[in-house]
Amino acid sequence: MNKSLTKLLSSVKLKNTGQPPGTLTAQEKTSGTAPPKITVIDYSENSLQENTIDDIASFSQYKNTDTKSWINISSLGDIETIKELGEVFSIHPLVLEDILDTDGRPKIEDLDDMVFTRIKMVYFKNKSNEIITEQVSMILGKGFLLTFQEYEEDVFEQIRNRIRNARGKIRKMDCSYLFYSIIDAIVDNYFHLPAVLGENLEGVEEKILKDPEPEDISLIHKIKSDLILIRRAIWPLREIINSVLRGEYDLIDDNIQIYLRDLYDHIIQVVDWLETFRDIVGSLIDTYMTSVSNKMNEVMKVLTIIATIFIPLTFVAGIYGMNFENMPELGWKSAYFIILGVMFLIAAGMVAYFKKKNWL
Amino acid sequence: MNKSLTKLLSSVKLKNTGQPPGTLTAQEKTSGTAPPKITVIDYSENSLQENTIDDIASFSQYKNTDTKSWINISSLGDIETIKELGEVFSIHPLVLEDILDTDGRPKIEDLDDMVFTRIKMVYFKNKSNEIITEQVSMILGKGFLLTFQEYEEDVFEQIRNRIRNARGKIRKMDCSYLFYSIIDAIVDNYFHLPAVLGENLEGVEEKILKDPEPEDISLIHKIKSDLILIRRAIWPLREIINSVLRGEYDLIDDNIQIYLRDLYDHIIQVVDWLETFRDIVGSLIDTYMTSVSNKMNEVMKVLTIIATIFIPLTFVAGIYGMNFENMPELGWKSAYFIILGVMFLIAAGMVAYFKKKNWL
Amino acid sequence: MNKSLTKLLSSVKLKNTGQPPGTLTAQEKTSGTAPPKITVIDYSENSLQENTIDDIASFSQYKNTDTKSWINISSLGDIETIKELGEVFSIHPLVLEDILDTDGRPKIEDLDDMVFTRIKMVYFKNKSNEIITEQVSMILGKGFLLTFQEYEEDVFEQIRNRIRNARGKIRKMDCSYLFYSIIDAIVDNYFHLPAVLGENLEGVEEKILKDPEPEDISLIHKIKSDLILIRRAIWPLREIINSVLRGEYDLIDDNIQIYLRDLYDHIIQVVDWLETFRDIVGSLIDTYMTSVSNKMNEVMKVLTIIATIFIPLTFVAGIYGMNFENMPELGWKSAYFIILGVMFLIAAGMVAYFKKKNWL
Amino acid sequence: MNKSLTKLLSSVKLKNTGQPPGTLTAQEKTSGTAPPKITVIDYSENSLQENTIDDIASFSQYKNTDTKSWINISSLGDIETIKELGEVFSIHPLVLEDILDTDGRPKIEDLDDMVFTRIKMVYFKNKSNEIITEQVSMILGKGFLLTFQEYEEDVFEQIRNRIRNARGKIRKMDCSYLFYSIIDAIVDNYFHLPAVLGENLEGVEEKILKDPEPEDISLIHKIKSDLILIRRAIWPLREIINSVLRGEYDLIDDNIQIYLRDLYDHIIQVVDWLETFRDIVGSLIDTYMTSVSNKMNEVMKVLTIIATIFIPLTFVAGIYGMNFENMPELGWKSAYFIILGVMFLIAAGMVAYFKKKNWL
Amino acid sequence: MNKSLTKLLSSVKLKNTGQPPGTLTAQEKTSGTAPPKITVIDYSENSLQENTIDDIASFSQYKNTDTKSWINISSLGDIETIKELGEVFSIHPLVLEDILDTDGRPKIEDLDDMVFTRIKMVYFKNKSNEIITEQVSMILGKGFLLTFQEYEEDVFEQIRNRIRNARGKIRKMDCSYLFYSIIDAIVDNYFHLPAVLGENLEGVEEKILKDPEPEDISLIHKIKSDLILIRRAIWPLREIINSVLRGEYDLIDDNIQIYLRDLYDHIIQVVDWLETFRDIVGSLIDTYMTSVSNKMNEVMKVLTIIATIFIPLTFVAGIYGMNFENMPELGWKSAYFIILGVMFLIAAGMVAYFKKKNWL
Repeated sequence: MNKSLTKLLSSVKLKNTGQPPGTLTAQEKTSGTAPPKITVIDYSENSLQENTIDDIASFSQYKNTDTKSWINISSLGDIETIKELGEVFSIHPLVLEDILDTDGRPKIEDLDDMVFTRIKMVYFKNKSNEIITEQVSMILGKGFLLTFQEYEEDVFEQIRNRIRNARGKIRKMDCSYLFYSIIDAIVDNYFHLPAVLGENLEGVEEKILKDPEPEDISLIHKIKSDLILIRRAIWPLREIINSVLRGEYDLIDDNIQIYLRDLYDHIIQVVDWLETFRDIVGSLIDTYMTSVSNKMNEVMKVLTIIATIFIPLTFVAGIYGMNFENMPELGWKSAYFIILGVMFLIAAGMVAYFKKKNWL
Repeated sequence: MNKSLTKLLSSVKLKNTGQPPGTLTAQEKTSGTAPPKITVIDYSENSLQENTIDDIASFSQYKNTDTKSWINISSLGDIETIKELGEVFSIHPLVLEDILDTDGRPKIEDLDDMVFTRIKMVYFKNKSNEIITEQVSMILGKGFLLTFQEYEEDVFEQIRNRIRNARGKIRKMDCSYLFYSIIDAIVDNYFHLPAVLGENLEGVEEKILKDPEPEDISLIHKIKSDLILIRRAIWPLREIINSVLRGEYDLIDDNIQIYLRDLYDHIIQVVDWLETFRDIVGSLIDTYMTSVSNKMNEVMKVLTIIATIFIPLTFVAGIYGMNFENMPELGWKSAYFIILGVMFLIAAGMVAYFKKKNWL
Repeated sequence: MNKSLTKLLSSVKLKNTGQPPGTLTAQEKTSGTAPPKITVIDYSENSLQENTIDDIASFSQYKNTDTKSWINISSLGDIETIKELGEVFSIHPLVLEDILDTDGRPKIEDLDDMVFTRIKMVYFKNKSNEIITEQVSMILGKGFLLTFQEYEEDVFEQIRNRIRNARGKIRKMDCSYLFYSIIDAIVDNYFHLPAVLGENLEGVEEKILKDPEPEDISLIHKIKSDLILIRRAIWPLREIINSVLRGEYDLIDDNIQIYLRDLYDHIIQVVDWLETFRDIVGSLIDTYMTSVSNKMNEVMKVLTIIATIFIPLTFVAGIYGMNFENMPELGWKSAYFIILGVMFLIAAGMVAYFKKKNWL
Repeated sequence: MNKSLTKLLSSVKLKNTGQPPGTLTAQEKTSGTAPPKITVIDYSENSLQENTIDDIASFSQYKNTDTKSWINISSLGDIETIKELGEVFSIHPLVLEDILDTDGRPKIEDLDDMVFTRIKMVYFKNKSNEIITEQVSMILGKGFLLTFQEYEEDVFEQIRNRIRNARGKIRKMDCSYLFYSIIDAIVDNYFHLPAVLGENLEGVEEKILKDPEPEDISLIHKIKSDLILIRRAIWPLREIINSVLRGEYDLIDDNIQIYLRDLYDHIIQVVDWLETFRDIVGSLIDTYMTSVSNKMNEVMKVLTIIATIFIPLTFVAGIYGMNFENMPELGWKSAYFIILGVMFLIAAGMVAYFKKKNWL
Repeated sequence: MNKSLTKLLSSVKLKNTGQPPGTLTAQEKTSGTAPPKITVIDYSENSLQENTIDDIASFSQYKNTDTKSWINISSLGDIETIKELGEVFSIHPLVLEDILDTDGRPKIEDLDDMVFTRIKMVYFKNKSNEIITEQVSMILGKGFLLTFQEYEEDVFEQIRNRIRNARGKIRKMDCSYLFYSIIDAIVDNYFHLPAVLGENLEGVEEKILKDPEPEDISLIHKIKSDLILIRRAIWPLREIINSVLRGEYDLIDDNIQIYLRDLYDHIIQVVDWLETFRDIVGSLIDTYMTSVSNKMNEVMKVLTIIATIFIPLTFVAGIYGMNFENMPELGWKSAYFIILGVMFLIAAGMVAYFKKKNWL
């Protein structure tokens, strides 16, 4: 749990207190990094153009064109770039602040001529089993889509290939289909999460039933914390897609409703999984408790029984160890062997009693 | 629990990531199997015709006729057939994807001129007590009903017989009555579930009160997991029927409202049962805990009492085993017997005290 | 709990699978019994006529008259009677099925020219403390009320007397007042339930605090199961009356709204009681656990203390039981008495220490 | 808990089964007492008249006047008085029944030309710490307010004084302000409850941490029962005021909305307190359990350690107590002292080991 | 928990019972303090004037001007000042009462030409880790904003500086922006709470896993109480902002909707944190319990094993300590050494058995 707790805590941080709203601040973890790489894919049903651009002012050319432009900003380290971009596309400073605030909740907002949304990619870091959440912000405008990512690697390469190769409907439909495709790619990746968590859980259960150890309960609590983290990232997305389905945003084409409904189903399915895992984690904690106390009970029982059998025998031996002058039995010839026999009978009787009582 | 957990986990699987939406993929478990058997029952109040057909193109004849056609596809192993069928009836690729995705949640969707629904059959596999969920998808159109099943055996034979023998109203009413009849047959089968679960639970309780063992708690957790699985399959159906009752689908005749209300009642009844079983399972876990600790307490108590009685006696014996030269009692004639008497009195006194305190 | 569980389970049964909807089947428990006794009370403000009738066809005379008719069918054993009655009053077969299905949930349904409702009488069987639920179905039509009971005895005699003696408003008002009166009589009887349950609980608590035994927890679980059973029977009635209060049924006169509101209050009061009992039962399980572990702790503590005092003393005795040739103390004259004194001091010291630590 | 449980149970009682609705019955506890004292305060902005009246018929003079009349009935023992009053003011018999049923839930009802409300005073009986709930019913009409109390003493003297001395707005505003003032006085008194409960809880906690005893858990359960009782009395009042705020009652002047909002806030505040206390009581039960098991663990640990140290030593003593003829050590000169030293070393070693393991 | 409980309890206090509503009473804790310091900042886009004023009547000049006036009252100790202020700005006495009642719940109220809101600052007192809640009341009118604080120090200095230096939009926009800015400053400060709580929790967890002590559980309960306190203060603010967002208050400019939405997000984020902490605190209590019982089990196990090994050995020694005359072994030459060997073998066998059983 420790790691998850630390992870959780690292994302509690103070807002830029006292600054006027809309003051941009780089996240500590991203600031100071190299300026963001900006790529543009400008496409229509018949044309395709792909560029990497440094001069932000030149972006304005993509703003009011007939072609569709996907402008991807691959890191949030350089505030100036973000600010200039904001000016070119006349984005409200509070929205830019939201883009930079990588610990915020997923949300969607209607900005009259644009739609802003902020969602989370969630995945397990390769080996450490640590959960990473990465924010993807999008601004959908008429004829363009801006995407902001925290880091350079992404899961959108297959979307780019579909655009390049004109596979599927992506080149034919407008930017809201691209908008949908990106969310869809992110949601598809969510399905890795229950798979990994499930594998972890399955191992834990077998371990617990055989040999419960404190580390196991730590691991279960870690998974529980992971589920909280994941839930915080995914749950709001459900409401976001729902509000799009209700048709609250004009910029999102009615033709993609059927795709969004499909997307909504997938999200529900992931959320469903997480709920099921929560139940299972609760059961596992119970199982652990039961298993520990069963094992302890078994130890205590066998040991106590051994002790109990020998205590009366030791008492008998103690009696004939007394030094009274007048103890007639002591002089009898086979007294010693008789007493040994009596002791054996007592022990056998007790074992039989315990067996009968089903304690042994 | 293990088995249920494995079952649960086997249905977490990755979506076909990166593919354009609507790309059809066969489920691993069904792919490679023989091409699906397709049967058609074409009926009206006075006519009846039953065929098994291989040439999919010939289906189109059933599409726009005055008679009602029930086209049943009995397995999902062959994607090509599904695809062709989709083209003949102009079904959206996403719907076909939903039909093939046998792990999805039950749902209903209005496709303008058709209604698509996907529900689950749930039953216990004959001997292994393992829960099987099988997906049944239906597409209700004007004058036809398509049903897609995962496996060939089904519970619809009695519906077929009712059509063949013109029993009840089925031949007189339109396809939405057939649609209702199929769901009704599935829901009727749900009533086996509480019956089987109840039998399992009843045995467990008696066992637990007499002789609680770790396997019992495993069994209870297995039933708990089963309840989760069943709930996931049945619960959404309630909302589906409810939305039909609200009259959201034009293709479903108003005349069958009274039947659907009846169906709704049955679903509520099953769901009610599951909730009650959840409560009972919770109580059983408590009972198990109480029973285990009662048994342990009894063991510990009796054993500790035995030990406690003999410890003071052993001490007395120890005293007269000391080798001091000047121990006057040792020389007394009946000292040995007096001491034996004293020991007996001590033991009797302790037993009396324990009895009075109600510890024995 | 066993009994309640059996009771619960006995009411899980398979629907008549595969039959066309509306196929009537007698309940196993009622089938084969004598044909139902049918009584008719036909009354208006000034007239009164009371009959027991066998010829069902003659019922039709009560259907469209100016007088009000209360037709009571006192058992559900004979399907034919029910069927004929259904035809005379043109009741939908599904409704008849609902009347015969004595394990269904309470519900109300608008049948255009009639209102069908199905509620539960709940009472404790005289001596066995077992809960009995009995179904009462009613069909309210224009000028008539049909009531169907599972068994012959009922709680409606006082209503009959009020009709016979023209007490209160019952003769003056229309059938919906009679409809209300019957539900009111049933709800008044619900107030016996918390009274009986409360008596049981009060005894249990005192018992648990003094001498907790496994049977007590069984009893508590039995009451918990009883509460589940009762809740399942009563809870839906709340929603039924609520829907009547919302004025959804034309056949129910607006003048009886004030009576229904009163009825609704009473139901809420009973439900409130059940909730409170649930809380109390939860507390009692806690109390039981605490009480058991307190008692066990007390036993263990006293016994362990006794053992602990004697173990060091036995060790001292053991030392002077050793056979070393050179043990100077053994020869001293009062060594024995000194050692006895030392032992006494050790024992006294330990007792004092335990007293000080508040362990004794 | 016992007392609270008894209290709870004493208020479960049977409705007057089988009586026509509206049949008045006196509560057992109040019946047979002296006839109620009836006082009238008739006031307007400039006039004031205060009477105690026995002739109920004379009340009618207060019904349709320009002045405002507050008619207070101070006990419910005499049914005839209530009945006559009901006739004079033409109150529906069901409402009179509700007034007499002192165990009913708080509620409000619109009687066209009157508003009926029934709420609860809740307070701790002076010394016994027992909770008393007393019902106050009110009927607000045009120009008059009837109040019915269970007992003669009340908390309304200050309201009377405000009327007598024309303090505040009470003389200027209409009867709904008086109606508000009475509820306000009752709600103000609710604030005593968390104060008393809080005092009790604070003492309990300190006690539990130092020296947990079974009586403490009894006390906590008593407070828990008290909270249930209080909640049952206060919670519905929230909904009552809310429905008044929604403007559902014409008789209640819009001018007092701001006062009612204030009242609503106060109720929320009390309810909030009760919720918080519930949480705290839950925590205290946990604390008790932890504290008991901590104390028990401490006892067991120290005692077991003592026993464990002496067992190996006693074994060593036992060895040299054996009577073998050939035991060379026995003849050595300082063997005894060496063995004593060895024993000391063993004991010291074990103590050191326990210390290191942090068990001591 | 003690401190938090005391804190909680200190805020339960009686309302001024029996007083006419609107009677002002100073809080005990604030009464008797120096008269409040009142500062006015009067500003427009181009002008700025800052004053400290004692003559309350002169405030009226700020009421109906074109400039915007922020009037801050820095303590609530002097009722007269508040009363006069209420007269100048014609504030309803009940609102003044709400301002003085520093233990009330946060709320917002529409007073036709003004909006009254009452919210809470929550922070940890520097060193004692004690939670302080301080009430900030605001009355927003046309062209002015009144703020009432409990104590003189505040967190608004940066807002004042922004006004003084005309940073951001604050000078350009109307008073509802100032209103927003103050709430925003308070909410920004809430982010300190999870940071501090998180730090506390992180330390506790590591401690608990290594060496669980009763103080740790006390500390966890303290954090739990803190969370309750904080939740009570913050939760209602969510609903307040929500009602503003729904546009219920005309005085609040539509232009600041986007800021309020941002504010709402921040509140949700804090509330989210608190919920997560609640989950974590629950997990920690579980962890504590597990950790304590693990440690105890370990102690008991090792100690019992030691005892169990020596008990049979002591029995063997006891046998050869018996004084029978005819015990042949006693005379054998190497019997003593053989017995020592046997004892060693018994001990070794038991250790091996325990090892195999994984108990050691």
